[in-house]
Amino acid sequence: MTTIQRLDAALAAHIEKVEHYKQVQTLLAWDARTGAPRKGASYAARAKATLAGELFKLQTDAEFGLRLEEAAQQEELDELSKRIIAEHWKTYKRWSAIPIEEYQAFVQQQGLANAAWLEARAANDFSIFAPHLKQIFNASLKFAGYWGYEQHAYDPLVQQFDPDLDTVTLDRIFSELKSALIPLIRRVTSSAKQPDTSIFNHPFPLEQQRQLGIELLQAIRYDFDAGQFGATVHPFSSAINPYDARLAAKFVENDVRVSLWSALHEGGHSLYTQNIDPNLIHTGLGIFTSYGIHESQSIFFEKFIGRHKGFWENNYFILQKIKPETFGHVSLDDFYFALNAVKPTFNRFEADELTYNLHLIIRYELEQAIIAGEVDYEGLPEAWNDKYEEYLGIRPPTHLEGILQDGHWSAGFGLFPSYTLGFVYAAQIHKVIRRELPDYDHLIESDHIETITGWLTTHIHQFGKSRSADELIKSITGKSIDTAPLIRYLTDKYEQLYEL
Amino acid sequence: MTTIQRLDAALAAHIEKVEHYKQVQTLLAWDARTGAPRKGASYAARAKATLAGELFKLQTDAEFGLRLEEAAQQEELDELSKRIIAEHWKTYKRWSAIPIEEYQAFVQQQGLANAAWLEARAANDFSIFAPHLKQIFNASLKFAGYWGYEQHAYDPLVQQFDPDLDTVTLDRIFSELKSALIPLIRRVTSSAKQPDTSIFNHPFPLEQQRQLGIELLQAIRYDFDAGQFGATVHPFSSAINPYDARLAAKFVENDVRVSLWSALHEGGHSLYTQNIDPNLIHTGLGIFTSYGIHESQSIFFEKFIGRHKGFWENNYFILQKIKPETFGHVSLDDFYFALNAVKPTFNRFEADELTYNLHLIIRYELEQAIIAGEVDYEGLPEAWNDKYEEYLGIRPPTHLEGILQDGHWSAGFGLFPSYTLGFVYAAQIHKVIRRELPDYDHLIESDHIETITGWLTTHIHQFGKSRSADELIKSITGKSIDTAPLIRYLTDKYEQLYEL
Repeated sequence: MTTIQRLDAALAAHIEKVEHYKQVQTLLAWDARTGAPRKGASYAARAKATLAGELFKLQTDAEFGLRLEEAAQQEELDELSKRIIAEHWKTYKRWSAIPIEEYQAFVQQQGLANAAWLEARAANDFSIFAPHLKQIFNASLKFAGYWGYEQHAYDPLVQQFDPDLDTVTLDRIFSELKSALIPLIRRVTSSAKQPDTSIFNHPFPLEQQRQLGIELLQAIRYDFDAGQFGATVHPFSSAINPYDARLAAKFVENDVRVSLWSALHEGGHSLYTQNIDPNLIHTGLGIFTSYGIHESQSIFFEKFIGRHKGFWENNYFILQKIKPETFGHVSLDDFYFALNAVKPTFNRFEADELTYNLHLIIRYELEQAIIAGEVDYEGLPEAWNDKYEEYLGIRPPTHLEGILQDGHWSAGFGLFPSYTLGFVYAAQIHKVIRRELPDYDHLIESDHIETITGWLTTHIHQFGKSRSADELIKSITGKSIDTAPLIRYLTDKYEQLYEL
Repeated sequence: MTTIQRLDAALAAHIEKVEHYKQVQTLLAWDARTGAPRKGASYAARAKATLAGELFKLQTDAEFGLRLEEAAQQEELDELSKRIIAEHWKTYKRWSAIPIEEYQAFVQQQGLANAAWLEARAANDFSIFAPHLKQIFNASLKFAGYWGYEQHAYDPLVQQFDPDLDTVTLDRIFSELKSALIPLIRRVTSSAKQPDTSIFNHPFPLEQQRQLGIELLQAIRYDFDAGQFGATVHPFSSAINPYDARLAAKFVENDVRVSLWSALHEGGHSLYTQNIDPNLIHTGLGIFTSYGIHESQSIFFEKFIGRHKGFWENNYFILQKIKPETFGHVSLDDFYFALNAVKPTFNRFEADELTYNLHLIIRYELEQAIIAGEVDYEGLPEAWNDKYEEYLGIRPPTHLEGILQDGHWSAGFGLFPSYTLGFVYAAQIHKVIRRELPDYDHLIESDHIETITGWLTTHIHQFGKSRSADELIKSITGKSIDTAPLIRYLTDKYEQLYEL
């Protein structure tokens, strides 16, 4: 018997309906980004908006709110039911706080901002995007006002994605990482020992890359009967429910690393979803608990498994089998070094493990500077370039490689920190898992990744949203979020690899 | 300005919402039959059922009904707006007539019947399926009672799909076809001249079949930017709107004809949808007008284009290019004869052009026999086999090749006649188009299919559901449905091909 049946029947039915709409929304988004035809996009968006409006109404329905309040006061309620109610109550409060016209205007404005970004890119002219960005950010801040905060307007914005984080903590995390990483990157890039990465740029037919992706997903035990492996222009995963956790990789003929990393990264997201307790489906808790924890699992599989040398001892043969003319005569050591090459780039998406967080630090610092009024929208592109020059030693030649590289800011403030939080969490988890599974390296070398996934399922995946990020990380590591394991991991690994 | 804006704003908004739900339903069905994972199927079905319930409520909303009634009485209304209102009024009346619990029970029963069919297949035991079939058919007849009819309970059932048809007309059509086709099939199958079809059974890798499908769809000018070409186990097309008309073919390694015909057939359906006037989107009329007319367009492209020798004069090189080892040394004449081989089969889906209608005549006669009480559910499998023996000279060795070959009857009575109606309509249209475009053969031979599609768009496609099947066929041919052109076409073609 599923937990939700212990709840009042009308309440449970309403929650199930909400969950059905959410699942369909996720599926429509998947379709829009994978198979949907170009010409149908605007009509599909209209249909999706209609359903999103219905979902909003269901989530903020006054009678639903009353039922939730009543249910929350029942003393005999079990812990899980309390969590279910708290989750929907939080959503109810969040969206009820915003006048529906403002919410609808914001959603529409997001679409317009994204279109303006495309136009700005075509003209290489940030001033086309700037007024939209301003509108979006101002609306975000207005929402923050509706939601309320104690210290910083950014707090409720980041808490949409990572409820346990706040600006003070983020400031600390980013500052610690910056202090450690910038000098380390300088040492690595000025090392005499450097890898040859040209092997990755040999043409690699897309159909063969797809085959590689399938075999790598099999290697990490992705369940193809509970998901789908698609293609797209910006990799993503769709967490519909534990029995339908899809992922889409990006395929680029002249850089096999793009599909390789995106399969492992999105595969990690999807493994998390597939391992959530199915009894949580239709409760609202059958999904990742926070964006940071979600990202920690994708990063775990991409970096702590996929960049582990033992993984390639097992799986390098796949590349050699599929593309013998490129990889047949390259040793595992050379391949592994090339795979872990450090090279500052303009784009987060192409970034290596070491420079990755700098991209997010820059985003975060710019967001804070905007809120503090330290930079205006006209000055933003140069502020962006200055930071790339200061932290990574490279300056984007045009804004296309700089501030116009993606349109993610069209969605609003607060999402970017999750990417770094995920890496920090993953390193904390990795440190503990190595202690608790002393044969960790051997498990990977001997193709027993299911033991590691089993550990992650026991300690993280199964709970879905029934435990918070902070509860999970404290129960695993004994403390809250902490950058030390990540800094230690990166320092040790790259000092050794680059013989510093 | 789209027509719907001339309607009352609240009415237009409600209609648009209905259309959004319908589009999403079609997309969910597409997903379930193409990429969706096996393990998620039951959860996806539940979410889809929730949305179907909402759609039902929207379509039968009492206030909506009142508004439609009011609008219908406005004298100054233009013709198109009248059609829009009439269409939604018809749906409103149809579904309002059925108690919602009975409707929901029927939908659930359809799912159970399909599951029972799978079980019956696994056990090769029709008695597992029989009670479900009985329940489904009885519910269909009960619905027919709610809807009312003058002559025959089958009338309102077939009119769900083909509003202009009735049992008297169907009896005539099937009887005329049977009288003409059975002797013709006997003459053809006993001819001394027979084709060699073994070329189609050489292994043909699925990826190459997909390439073939793409090139054939390009040949008939399918717009890939307004659709998608997928793979499935039972070919189908999804008419979401003119900008999103998808199709899925079936791919079988040892019979390339399956994907070849399904691409052309479903491609024909999708061309119809793509050519509907986009102003009809969100009115309820932006879709095929009846199942019979929809089928006429798939059959037109599959049979009157795809089985035209001129089409292969142009496109045979694609097969020869993709599979030179199989087709390189086969002449166009031999290929063409093999492609048009007549051979009675147990399965409609594998049927050639000549035996195809017999499968539907058998279904229809059995449906009528059930309604008339001339056969009971226990006797149905033998009645099925007897008819195959009588009409096609073959008797299914087991019920797996017989009555259990598909689970389509799980949906209820009345859909099968559309397949034959489509062929009859297509032949009528083909006769007129040859008269109006005297260089028809040359247009196909010289790769100017867009001229033919243009004619079909002008006379059929563009109107969507704003003209009825009977209106269309009368305006094109000057008369109603008529089997003579189909009988003439098949007789001439196969007498010549088999040198009778």
